[in-house]
Amino acid sequence: MDKLGGVCLNEGCIPSKALLYSAKLLEGAIQGEKYGLSVEKASLNQEKVIDRKNKVVRTLVSGVKGALKEAGVTLVMGAGRLLPKAIDQATDQSTGQSTDREGSQNAAFTVRIGEQQYLGQNVILAAGSSPLLPPIPGLGEQREKGFVLTSKEMLDLRQIPASLAVIGGGVIGLEMACYYNAVGTKVTVIEMLPKIGGQIDEDIAALLQKNLEKKGIVFHLAAKVTEIGEGAVVYEKDGESRSLAAELVLASLGRQPNTEGLGLAELGVAMAGKAVKTDGRLRTNIPGLYAVGDINGKVMLAHTAYWEGERAVKDILARIKETDGKWSENKPSQSEQAFRAILGIDVPADEADYSMIPGVIYTNPEVAWVGKSGDPATSGEQDFYVQTISMRFSGRYLAENEGGDGICKLVLDKESQRLAGVHMIANHSAEVIAAAAILVQRGGDVQEIKDYIFPHPSVSEILREGIHSLQ
Amino acid sequence: MDKLGGVCLNEGCIPSKALLYSAKLLEGAIQGEKYGLSVEKASLNQEKVIDRKNKVVRTLVSGVKGALKEAGVTLVMGAGRLLPKAIDQATDQSTGQSTDREGSQNAAFTVRIGEQQYLGQNVILAAGSSPLLPPIPGLGEQREKGFVLTSKEMLDLRQIPASLAVIGGGVIGLEMACYYNAVGTKVTVIEMLPKIGGQIDEDIAALLQKNLEKKGIVFHLAAKVTEIGEGAVVYEKDGESRSLAAELVLASLGRQPNTEGLGLAELGVAMAGKAVKTDGRLRTNIPGLYAVGDINGKVMLAHTAYWEGERAVKDILARIKETDGKWSENKPSQSEQAFRAILGIDVPADEADYSMIPGVIYTNPEVAWVGKSGDPATSGEQDFYVQTISMRFSGRYLAENEGGDGICKLVLDKESQRLAGVHMIANHSAEVIAAAAILVQRGGDVQEIKDYIFPHPSVSEILREGIHSLQ
Repeated sequence: MDKLGGVCLNEGCIPSKALLYSAKLLEGAIQGEKYGLSVEKASLNQEKVIDRKNKVVRTLVSGVKGALKEAGVTLVMGAGRLLPKAIDQATDQSTGQSTDREGSQNAAFTVRIGEQQYLGQNVILAAGSSPLLPPIPGLGEQREKGFVLTSKEMLDLRQIPASLAVIGGGVIGLEMACYYNAVGTKVTVIEMLPKIGGQIDEDIAALLQKNLEKKGIVFHLAAKVTEIGEGAVVYEKDGESRSLAAELVLASLGRQPNTEGLGLAELGVAMAGKAVKTDGRLRTNIPGLYAVGDINGKVMLAHTAYWEGERAVKDILARIKETDGKWSENKPSQSEQAFRAILGIDVPADEADYSMIPGVIYTNPEVAWVGKSGDPATSGEQDFYVQTISMRFSGRYLAENEGGDGICKLVLDKESQRLAGVHMIANHSAEVIAAAAILVQRGGDVQEIKDYIFPHPSVSEILREGIHSLQ
Repeated sequence: MDKLGGVCLNEGCIPSKALLYSAKLLEGAIQGEKYGLSVEKASLNQEKVIDRKNKVVRTLVSGVKGALKEAGVTLVMGAGRLLPKAIDQATDQSTGQSTDREGSQNAAFTVRIGEQQYLGQNVILAAGSSPLLPPIPGLGEQREKGFVLTSKEMLDLRQIPASLAVIGGGVIGLEMACYYNAVGTKVTVIEMLPKIGGQIDEDIAALLQKNLEKKGIVFHLAAKVTEIGEGAVVYEKDGESRSLAAELVLASLGRQPNTEGLGLAELGVAMAGKAVKTDGRLRTNIPGLYAVGDINGKVMLAHTAYWEGERAVKDILARIKETDGKWSENKPSQSEQAFRAILGIDVPADEADYSMIPGVIYTNPEVAWVGKSGDPATSGEQDFYVQTISMRFSGRYLAENEGGDGICKLVLDKESQRLAGVHMIANHSAEVIAAAAILVQRGGDVQEIKDYIFPHPSVSEILREGIHSLQ
């Protein structure tokens, strides 16, 4: 990654949203007949779509750059590597304390970038992730030949393929399937699990699949890709080996943390599989070394990274406060003051509840969720109950979704009557989930939620309707 | 009104949203070029749009009917009138108490509908409102001739007029102006105030006007209509009298409470102008008589009516509780139990804060707001400060709005650091305002709001961005 803003901004959620918005306009034009619209010859100009997407990305990247500059951050572009001996040296310089890593609160680091070395009392690793490419026979070879692409390349495709095989029906696979389906590609999704959407609610996964099938996307579930050959994907389903011909293949099989080349093994950084192991304050096993975002492999979403970054910085500031400024020699002169003012210095809790992080799939219809699962199989323990309500109880949903079959599932804590989870499939749910996330994160209970006034008509009213429909 | 669901559902927000969604698809098709879309000959079939709108309304009306039935409510269709003597009679029957209205908690009512009379210990007036038609010379005559329409008729127009003069640039006028502009009508809005949008934020009103002008809508502000003649509206602006020719005129000059024919004067019901006067629990001056929704003239929105209805019912139930079931003879057998279970019986506060009610204008772009005004002129007292942030800080907004100039204004209480108001102009803001409303209604402060995790990329993130950009 040679650009600011990470995967999300440069080759993930932002570019995909730019593409998906174009697709949504096209779908609106083509399927608008139900709403009284008639058009002739609606189509997308892929070159224009990609050019516009690049402009959106450039604008946001320059915004990130501006924000860093304004905050007084020194920016060094390059591949950084932690030096193994740095801790002892730096510790010796500043306090003369023991070189025992485990016990030392004053460990410091040296990061080498090219010929330069940079000292820091704390280091936050935020190196992101890359598409996971498992050792499927033929995958490497066909990738070199340009038959197999990752989402990065799919977002820059200037020619629309006639057909596309998507390996992996998770968030990325589904969003790309949706876009290419909308622009006329024949899309087939091959998913190893018996459902699409990864961890999303089972009922919602089934509804999403039904909606996407109506648009012409074909799904092969519980299907395992065994080989990628010349112009075809071979997969196994129901004990049979089948072959799917396609012009292109998207490998959307998940992502893996970028941990290579950072010098982690030499430092003795503890790993959890391929990811850097972190606790609830994003601390690694090395004091002063933090890991936020995709590199810790927990919930690979940009807003997880923001949240983790803030938690890590708060922990650093709290530790600075505890040690009464002992680190002042090495710390940047302005940023501490700024951070204190912006973030406060409350120490983050040891435990971080990752289920509180909302998620969205920007398919059409959108899927969004936050909190506790509504699947009996996973929520299990009988402590929760689930209220499912048709989205058609929202007047705005009804007015904007002819034949819409969306649902909203509320998960409630039986004892406390708190809202513990919300799972939705409906357009606008990417925005409605913000209200749901606030309620779930603050632990709002049924009575409190009944007292809020929602605007009418809105899709968000479904939260109110769901709560009021409880018996 | 001979249908369940009131103005909003039958001739207000729901039908207008159905129309506006069709218009949005059309605009998306026509203006999609910026997003890579190309279409030929895009148009709306007005007949189809109106038919679909009617279907949406029918579906929701039957939903309301079903909900009433399920709740065990007896439904009587007809024009109801309160009888002046009923209070004394009913009171005598049930308790034999004094006939002094003011002091009696046990006053009861008789409502006559046709030949039938219905007794009730409490009555909730919810008769709604009608379009206000002020005594402008020629208005009545031209309305009879079909040249002047109200929003009710505009929502059923089966032929698209070539030109439309909209008198009144409030919420209804702007939404109708937007729809007819989108379908090709030449639209001119005449507004008496120097800004559009009624009470909405000044900066946002200016941005909305600019956006709508770009689409071809013409505005005459600070302009007073003095006469409506044959095929033309005469108005005064800058001391000059001008004439505007149009095929049709929409009179969207506000709404007035429906208080005629209900027997209110005979009962001695106190009025506030044309509206029934109510306190924070929606009580009128007559014990047991409540007035909710447009009839009390406070904030004429459906969700205000819901909220007021709940407050009124809670107050009734609290009073039943206080009197220890004395009224049991006259009260419906099932509903109290149901209400107690659904609503709880906390007594509503004496004061009701109507500024906590969110509002939306479903123009394109949408405008939404909740809480304290951000205009220095009205927020005045120096206790608040306003943070204005460009919507372009939201990645999703940027990806979906080429050249978008939306803003979000946060109003903060200086002392408590609580979020006191949010005002936005941007698409999706009708949904984002739900999250804002929860934060404003519960009095969330800056630190609390910083701790919530918003989904990325979303328009709702602007709330987070705005809070984080505070110095």
